[in-house]
This record gives sequence, structure tokens and C-alpha cells, in this order.
Amino acid sequence: MKERLTKLREWMVQNGFFGVIIPKADEFQGEYIAPEAERLAWLTGFTGSAGEAVVFLDRAFLFVDGRYTLQAQKEVDTNLITVVQTDDGRTASWLFSAIPSGTVIGYNSWLFTPYHLKQLKKITSAAGVTLKPTPCDPIDNLWKNKPKTTNTWAVSYPLKYAGVSSTDKIIDIATSIGVDGDEILLLTDIEALAWLLNIRGNDIPYIPVVQSFGLLYRTGMFQWFVNQNKITDTLRAALPSTVEILPINLFTQVLEVCAEQKSKIQLDSTQCPCWIFDKLQTTGAVLHDKANPCSLKMACKNTVERAGAVNAHIKDGVAVCRFLAWFDKNSQSGKITELDCANKIHEFRAQNPLYRGESFATIAASGKNAAYIHYHTDEENNALIENNSMFLIDSGAQYLDGTTDITRTISVGNVGSLEKKRFTQVLKGHIAIATIAFPDGTTGSQIDILARQYLWRDAVDYAHGTGHGIGSYLSVHEGPQRISRKPNNIALLPGMLISNEPGYYLPNAFGIRIENVVMVEPMPMTQGSEMKILGLSTITLAPFDKRLIDKTMLTLREKSWIDGYHARIKRIISPLVDKETAQWLDNACSPL
Amino acid sequence: MKERLTKLREWMVQNGFFGVIIPKADEFQGEYIAPEAERLAWLTGFTGSAGEAVVFLDRAFLFVDGRYTLQAQKEVDTNLITVVQTDDGRTASWLFSAIPSGTVIGYNSWLFTPYHLKQLKKITSAAGVTLKPTPCDPIDNLWKNKPKTTNTWAVSYPLKYAGVSSTDKIIDIATSIGVDGDEILLLTDIEALAWLLNIRGNDIPYIPVVQSFGLLYRTGMFQWFVNQNKITDTLRAALPSTVEILPINLFTQVLEVCAEQKSKIQLDSTQCPCWIFDKLQTTGAVLHDKANPCSLKMACKNTVERAGAVNAHIKDGVAVCRFLAWFDKNSQSGKITELDCANKIHEFRAQNPLYRGESFATIAASGKNAAYIHYHTDEENNALIENNSMFLIDSGAQYLDGTTDITRTISVGNVGSLEKKRFTQVLKGHIAIATIAFPDGTTGSQIDILARQYLWRDAVDYAHGTGHGIGSYLSVHEGPQRISRKPNNIALLPGMLISNEPGYYLPNAFGIRIENVVMVEPMPMTQGSEMKILGLSTITLAPFDKRLIDKTMLTLREKSWIDGYHARIKRIISPLVDKETAQWLDNACSPL
Repeated sequence: MKERLTKLREWMVQNGFFGVIIPKADEFQGEYIAPEAERLAWLTGFTGSAGEAVVFLDRAFLFVDGRYTLQAQKEVDTNLITVVQTDDGRTASWLFSAIPSGTVIGYNSWLFTPYHLKQLKKITSAAGVTLKPTPCDPIDNLWKNKPKTTNTWAVSYPLKYAGVSSTDKIIDIATSIGVDGDEILLLTDIEALAWLLNIRGNDIPYIPVVQSFGLLYRTGMFQWFVNQNKITDTLRAALPSTVEILPINLFTQVLEVCAEQKSKIQLDSTQCPCWIFDKLQTTGAVLHDKANPCSLKMACKNTVERAGAVNAHIKDGVAVCRFLAWFDKNSQSGKITELDCANKIHEFRAQNPLYRGESFATIAASGKNAAYIHYHTDEENNALIENNSMFLIDSGAQYLDGTTDITRTISVGNVGSLEKKRFTQVLKGHIAIATIAFPDGTTGSQIDILARQYLWRDAVDYAHGTGHGIGSYLSVHEGPQRISRKPNNIALLPGMLISNEPGYYLPNAFGIRIENVVMVEPMPMTQGSEMKILGLSTITLAPFDKRLIDKTMLTLREKSWIDGYHARIKRIISPLVDKETAQWLDNACSPL
Repeated sequence: MKERLTKLREWMVQNGFFGVIIPKADEFQGEYIAPEAERLAWLTGFTGSAGEAVVFLDRAFLFVDGRYTLQAQKEVDTNLITVVQTDDGRTASWLFSAIPSGTVIGYNSWLFTPYHLKQLKKITSAAGVTLKPTPCDPIDNLWKNKPKTTNTWAVSYPLKYAGVSSTDKIIDIATSIGVDGDEILLLTDIEALAWLLNIRGNDIPYIPVVQSFGLLYRTGMFQWFVNQNKITDTLRAALPSTVEILPINLFTQVLEVCAEQKSKIQLDSTQCPCWIFDKLQTTGAVLHDKANPCSLKMACKNTVERAGAVNAHIKDGVAVCRFLAWFDKNSQSGKITELDCANKIHEFRAQNPLYRGESFATIAASGKNAAYIHYHTDEENNALIENNSMFLIDSGAQYLDGTTDITRTISVGNVGSLEKKRFTQVLKGHIAIATIAFPDGTTGSQIDILARQYLWRDAVDYAHGTGHGIGSYLSVHEGPQRISRKPNNIALLPGMLISNEPGYYLPNAFGIRIENVVMVEPMPMTQGSEMKILGLSTITLAPFDKRLIDKTMLTLREKSWIDGYHARIKRIISPLVDKETAQWLDNACSPL
């Protein structure tokens, strides 16, 4: 680490920078990035999914959000780099106030969105500090033996899973561009591109996407800029005739042509790289900054995707219930480790022919490790499952028909009363979300309090959101809806998938999270109904650990919800598993 | 009505307007206005506290919010004026799309804020319609026998109630102006002026304020523009020496001087009249549009004001409990009317020496009248209290030490099971708000769902907010906090007073509202607390009607909260009332 920082600082001195900002990002601005874009991890050792380092000539800082504070402190040499928790895991506003006014801070303009740069500029300009794009990426310059970019094939995503043809999606979105009076929609979000073209790929761990850029014209013509080696004839034949495949290195040239023609271009400044935004703006394009019109359409799953999600969660329920039964049998042996558990749950999932891999790196955390909200273990730190403690496993799968995400917290031996109290408070919050009924227009930030209310009574909380959107065989974290204290104006709409995952974490002691995926659905109208009401239907199928529930804390309504949920799991999953797991389910799903 | 509309239209033709907009507003932009400013009521007959008429040459519309839809339809001649409900009681965005492009719509720029005009301009410009200030107010021109402006004296509000001296408040606010880099704070909000100067008056029904304007300089100098007839020597002596009293008709001239000097003026564009804003902007002032810095300070009551609020609510509890006992004794006699009830509750309140009048016009609504959220009766429509129905009374008082606001829904004879079910759902929502614990930064829009969740399960709701701020011997509706589904970024802070008033209304059948005032308070830290937690302490003291509660719908926690609240009422109020009321309280406050 020290040597890398030293080399970076030498580069900074040579190039006239007092500091540089290294984000966790690539030029597609998604949450997950390819190994060759892991510049932040290379420099600092921090492997979490979000964060930002600021390296000055004399000091260095790593900013992370609440999920990653403990992990960052462990992974990073804190003698060299100060770890700081901020709300959004981005640079703290006080940072630049202490450094000399007039100094120059560098950034790679491909790795920031205009939206984020604006935030940064606010805090630097307040301190009299200048932000300047670096001539090249400062890390790429120093990083020897950088992993090679993968060149796997892109494949077509069949209509039987996608539900709507790419042709129809393109016409729909192209029409919306026209209605806005724009000529071109710039698409840099690789998840939206995968959705729009009904394609999937293998360029990035955990998300089946293809690194590429796109220009959608309001005429319905689509230019897809992608590495030609990824494209097979089969895929070419499956794409709509209006899609033109172009080499990815032509992208910036085509943009320049569009700009010279003063085209009206719609883009989403929270998604596209600054480099593109600046280029278009300085070369004459008329920019219309607007939320990516694909996002909300992707979020509201069509009927085929909804059925796929339900089916994927049945498959996943089978694997998770088999894992839970296996775990209960072996957890107190003193022989199994966190990695054994992560491998085991993958093994059960992999037995399904539609399984295509994990949707994120499994978090398998024993005892106090679970207090790291996004705990990550490896061969070196791999812990044995500790007796008389709780074990937390947060994992998910990519199936051809859907993406899953589930967390269970499991008792191993005897667990103390504080653990049970907190588990039950978290569960009560989970149930309050699962059973809410709400009218049109209700947002995730309005319902978030339901999940936290029982913890708040004891003056405790959890430092993460309550729920995130989920893709259809795409990213396990998908916008634009979320359940969070942070303001969010996206109403929950029928067909949206969202996680329901309150938790509680006591550092050096234990961690609890209970996570299911729910789908927004219209509720039936009954006599006396005065308006349309939506509800959340839980599609994840695996029992909660009843041994951790303090029944005296539950209302009748909560008890009957749990019993009903468990009965449903038994009814659906039991016929699909081996005898031993079915027996385990009999007990795990019996009434409270 | 018809004649008034005809005359207005004649004026419109003469002055080249195709339409005019008549808001419920005066030049101080408060919620309550003086009788001489009741232009909307004069023109349309509608007497609600919020609304806006748009009169075209051929048609006329009245826009009101959900509280006033039924009332407006009753008060207005709907053959002449179409009543339309909108979310905010302001002009609907579709209105201008149907009228000829290029037409001119007039408005009195003293009666609109820049904030509101911006909203209007959005919808008119989208339709190609021009908004133009009228040369004078179109109604004032036609309104013969307009009530005379009152000229009552302003009085000093003693430190024993205000808690903080006007000198200290002025220094505090003047400092904040300086920190913002501004030279002058323009104050047009008469409630803020009353708070800042520790004065009260009698210019407007229900709020003890003085119609005036103010300019606060960052030096701490204050120019108060007010009708000199209102000012006594006693008041003059009580005001800080830095306050200069100037005739109100000098105000616009002084503004022009400030503007010519290119002064940096801070103002709140949601409060000040357009006329002033436009004048300053066109004559050279540098405007800084910012939320009125007095608002948040007013909202967070100081310790003296908090004690005053508690004491005022004890006094009010005495009067309300006496009323409730009287009502129960007489309600089934078939002889008492809604107005009798309004008079009676006023009579009980008036027996307290600190009583200064009602804080708003009492809503006393029998049976189906209660479905009008802001029902208003008069000699002509005054109904008898109906047997076998519910009676709703929403009333409040101005005491020298505080302002109150309470609603009770009371059983008269036998009430049906739907009424009891809805009453209990509303009560459960009320209790969920009353008992919430929340961390710093939580806003009223985050907790609103707690009040509605039980109604939403049955696909019903109420068309008003859940709570509004309350002044200290000032307006019963005070900003900036509120409990509402509408987004609001004002965190609930210690010392804020806010109403807790969920309801339910079934047109032509019944209406329910349960309203207490709560105060935001820090909760005690206990073992295991990980953060500071705030709670809401209920300061209103009058029992809920147990006859309307379906006990089977309550949790143990809810039952024990009600029993505890009732026991507290009995303990505090019983020693302060006559024997008969005390006996009534024994029964009304006995455990469920």
C-alpha cells in the first residue's frame, strides 16, 4: 500500500496536483465494476462496493458509508489512510476546508457523473480549491499486471423470459424521446442497455451485462457501440433490424458528429460520465438532462417478468431451505467455516439448471463478524461457525428467469436475550413493511419508518436503507425506487420488486438482518373501499428462525402473519426437496 | 352572486381581461385575513379558510382543497361557479388548456406571493396565456359597504409569557442575516413580527396580530411600518430602543430607497407579496430568497413558552371536560343545537381570566354534517344534535400563555358498528403518532403513515394533513413543520408544538376526527441507547369517548396508553372542576 501511495504521489507532483480523487467507479457508472476497474481496491485495499479515496501529498482519506465503516477499517492500513464514514460514502464536505486555498485536485472525468462532480465542486469551490480533470487515469498509469478486460460473448435474452420484445421496448422509449422534443437518447447505463436490447453478457461479476454504449434516435434507430468480438451471428440475427452494431471506439467520434449537428440529446446526468457530458456541451449539442426513461419501465416488471421472479424465488427457496437444514445439522460441529457455508449455498443453487451464478458475493458471517453490515471473508480470515451465537447469511442468485436476494440470521446453540429482543424488533419491522397497504403515490421513504419504529423505541437503529429495487436477471440493486429515510419521490408501482431488509448491528457482538423480496401488487377492492390500494407480496420462501423470536413481543396479527408465511413455504417448498429437508421444514414451519 | 359576477365581468371587459384570479389572501399572506380582505367570500359566498376563484368572461371556477369540497358546493351557486377540488386548493393545471391562447388573465399582485405566481405562470405559459397584474383590485372596485379596517391598539406581550426579550430576538435574527451576507431582512409575515417584537394586537379574527411590515437591518436596527393610531405610549416604551416606528404608508417609499442603494435584501418568496418582490427586483435591490429565519425559531418554543403551552392546555382541559360533561347530560334531550354547543364551550373557556377568545371558529357538527371536514354552521342552518349519531367538535382557544386546538368525536345514543370501527382505526392512528420515538432529523412526512396505516388497510383515508404547527398565543396554524404525506424537509425539533389529528369522513353519513396537541421532547437515555431519541408528549387533556372504541381492535400497548392518558387527565383536571364534572370524569376516565 505504502509503495502504491508513494508512486501515486510522485505522479501527482510531476503532473501538478496537490490531491487526486479515486472513486469506486468505471466509465459505465454502475454499482458493480469489472476487475480491471478496481482502482480503489488496488490503491487502498478496500473491497466494498462503494467508497471514494482522496489522496493529498501529505495525507489520504477513504470515505465509506455506514455499511462499510468496520470493513474499511480492517482492510485499509489506517496509518496511511484515514477512514471516514459519510452518509453517502462520498467525500465529506469539511475535507477541503483545511487545505491551502488555490491548490489543484485531479479526477478522471470518465469516472464521475456530472451530478456527482457538481456536489464535489460545491465543496471544493467553497474552500477555494480547483478541481481539474487528470490527463489520464493516475492509477492506470501505475498499475502493473492489471487484469485484462474480459471478452466473453453477449447473448440474446429470450422473449419467454423478457416478456416484451426489444423492438417494442425501443419503439416505446423512442416515442417518449419524441414527446420530450429530443432527437437522441444517450444510454451509458449497461443495465438499461441489456434491458432495452434483450441481451445479457458476462463482462462484470454478478450482473449479466455487456459493457457498451448506445444512442437511441427518436426515429427508432439504435446505434449500439460494443466490442465487436462479443457479438455472434446468432445475437446479430436476434436483434431488431433497427439496431446498428458499431465498434465501441467509434462512440466518441459519433458523439462529436451529433454535437456538431447541434442535436437535442437527452441524457441522465446521474448516470453518464462527465467526460461525455463535457464533450457534448462544449461541442454544441443541446442537452436535456432527465432521468433515464428506461429506469422506471425496467423497475415495473411486465407480467412475464413477474411470473419469472416468483418462479426464481421458488427455486431459490428450495436451495436456501436445503442450506438451512444442512446448516442446522452441522452448525454446532465446530468444524464448518463461513466459506463452507457460502460454498454450500452456492452448491445447492447450482443444482438448478437455470442458475447462472451469484447475484453478489455471499456474506456469511459468524458471531461478531455479522456486525460488519457487508462482511466479506476470504481464505485467510475465514472463521469457524461459533457456537452460542448468531450466524448471518446474505446471498442471492441469478437465474435465467429472475434475480434473488435473501438474508437469514440463524441461531447456533444458545443465544442471549438481548439478541432475541433485537431479532424480534427487526422482525416486527420486517412484518410492518410486509403487511402495509398504501394508496397510489406512496413512496419508499414514506413507509421506511414502519421498519425502524420498534428499534427506535430502544434508541437504536441500523445504518443502511430498508430496501432496494431488484432487476429481472439483472442487477440485484436496481433503481429508481427504494425504501429509505432519504427523500425519494418515486412512487411504489405495481410490478416493482424491492427488498425488505431491516437489521441491527452491535459492533464486537452480533449482527442481525432479515431480508425478503417483495413485489408491489394491487390489493383486491372490498366493500367500503374508497380508493385503489397497493400491497407488498412477499415472494422469498424460507422460514425465519423461530428460536430467535421472543413471542411475548409479538401481536396476534404478527404471529398469524408469520404462521401463514411459514405454512405457505412448507406447502410450496416441501414437495420440491429431499426428505431430510422436508422434515426440517415440518419443524421450522410449524406454528409459533 | 350573479350580479356581482356580472359586474366583475363588466370590469374585466373594460380593462381588457379575459379572466381574473381571486385568491383567499391579503397583503400579509397569512392564513386568516381581516373582514375587509374577504374578497373571495364576497364574490362567491365561499367562507372556507383557503381557496381560489378564477372568473372567465363565460365561466367561473372555485378551487378548494379536500377539507372544503362539500362546504364549497353548499355555499356557492354551482350553476354560476364550478367547484373543483385540488390537492392544494389552488388553480388546477388543466384550467387554461381549454381557453384561447393569447388571452390575458389578471391578478392583484399584492395578493400573491412570488412562489405562488411562479406556479401559476407555469400552467398559464404552458397554455399560451398571459398573466398580468390588474391596475387595482377588481373586487375592491365593486364592493360597496366594505367593512372598515379595524384600528385597535397593539399591546406589548410580557416577558413572563414570551420568555425571551425582543432585544435578544432581534440580535439573534440580525446576526443570522449578517452571516448570510445580507444587509436587510424584509418581514411581511405578521405572526413573525408579533413574535419578534413581543407584541400582540387585534387586527384579524382569531390571531392576536398587528397588521404591519418590518425591515430588520443586520446592525440590529428595526423599522416597523404600522398604522400610528395603533401605538400607545406604553407600547412605545416597552419596545427595544433599536425599533423605529414609521407610518405604514411610508413602507413602499423606504423600500425604493433600499433598492436604489442596491441593498442586499433577504426575503421569503413564499410569504412576501409579489408587488414588493417585483418592485425591489426592478428597482435594483439584490434579493436573497430564503426561508424566513424567524419561522423555525418561533416553532421551537422556549422553556417559558413550553410551560405556557402546558398550562394553557390544563385550562383548556378544564373547559373542555366541563363541556363534555354538560354535553353528555343534554345531548339526547332533542333540544340543543350545534350553535348551543359552540357557545357553551366558549362560555366555559371564557371563565378563565387568561382567555382571550377562540383560536378559530368552532366546528360543531352533528351527524352527517361532520362529514364536512371544516363544517361551519350559522343561525340559518343550525342543526339540532341528532340522536343515535356522532357529534364532532373541533375548537381552540387563545390564552395569554398559549394557543389550543382540540377535536373530540362524541357518541349520542346508539352508534353503528361501522362508525365504531372507523373511530377505532382513527384512534389507533392517533396513538401510533402519540407514541412514536424517532431520531434527530425525522420529519413529519416520515411519520405521517403511522396515522393512516389502519385506515389504508380498509382502502379508506382522510383528505387532510395529520398535523400542523401551533403558535404561542399566536396562530393556531403555524409553520414550518407539519405531519403530512406531502414532502416536508423540516425535522421535528424539541419544543415544537404540533397537532395530531387523523380523521375519517363518509359523505352523507358521519365524520370522525381525534385531535390532540403534542410537544416534541427529548426522550430519556436508557441503558443500551445508541442515539438521542425524541418523542411526542401529549399536552391536551380531555378523554376520548370510550363508547366509540371497539376494544377488540386494540393491542395491549394501545389499551394501556389510553388508560394511562385517561388516568393523567383525571388526576390533573378533576381537582380543578365542579363536582358534577369530576363525577363525569370518574366514569369517562375509568380503565377500558
